Amino acid sequence: MPATMKIYFAASIRGGRDDWASYLEIVRQLRDYGQVLTEHVGDAELSASGEGLDDRFIHDRDLGWLRTSDYLVAEVTTPSLGVGYEIGKATEWGKPVLCLYRPAEGRSLSAMISGSNRVTLKEYQSPTELPEIFEQFLQSK
Amino acid sequence: MPATMKIYFAASIRGGRDDWASYLEIVRQLRDYGQVLTEHVGDAELSASGEGLDDRFIHDRDLGWLRTSDYLVAEVTTPSLGVGYEIGKATEWGKPVLCLYRPAEGRSLSAMISGSNRVTLKEYQSPTELPEIFEQFLQSK
Repeated sequence: MPATMKIYFAASIRGGRDDWASYLEIVRQLRDYGQVLTEHVGDAELSASGEGLDDRFIHDRDLGWLRTSDYLVAEVTTPSLGVGYEIGKATEWGKPVLCLYRPAEGRSLSAMISGSNRVTLKEYQSPTELPEIFEQFLQSK
Repeated sequence: MPATMKIYFAASIRGGRDDWASYLEIVRQLRDYGQVLTEHVGDAELSASGEGLDDRFIHDRDLGWLRTSDYLVAEVTTPSLGVGYEIGKATEWGKPVLCLYRPAEGRSLSAMISGSNRVTLKEYQSPTELPEIFEQFLQSK
């Protein structure tokens, strides 16, 4: 594990902020492993209308961060075009990808995520289960 | 435009089927331009629980189709991880990508889509606007 490990954290913003409390906790835990490039994703103040910046700027900034990152960690419980897009890029670029998913009645994860052999998929119900998942994934790479 | 043009149509399946009537109409119109590799996406019988096939099989089949396609046409109104993933791959592979989006109050498109310079984004409200959009996009490539 590089000393200055860079982690790109992806989660739904404009697709809906129902799970923001989970995102905040994930960012908090990931900080123990390195620099989280996208800390704002866990920000309670960030609404589904987004950051209020130009979309081209956001796209190019985020893809730049993703390129320089060592890992992509994505929370995939709330369907999101942007998160899917970033997983598509990261798997293409050979980055290790960890997807976190909270299964629930009436919810079904995309086969593009669950069926990809370049994605490590971990299900959880509570943030208390995350330390073990992060320990395994981030230490093993 | 190649005589046997192959079009990959992407739209939300497990993310939600609210817009399936639009998808059906899009597939109907796209057939005038070539072979639609993913006709089942517009199927009224297809529910959000998906096709009932193994996820690895679906992933590899769909990515194989996407690789052989000449264009990706994606309906991006309903947020979807799979659609985002496919747009991420297609833009990486240099495929022309057309995204169709119906703006509405309280809805906001991902900056990863609206901010990408490899995506042609067209807004519409009614399927009657689609023929002109398809004519422009599919004839110009």
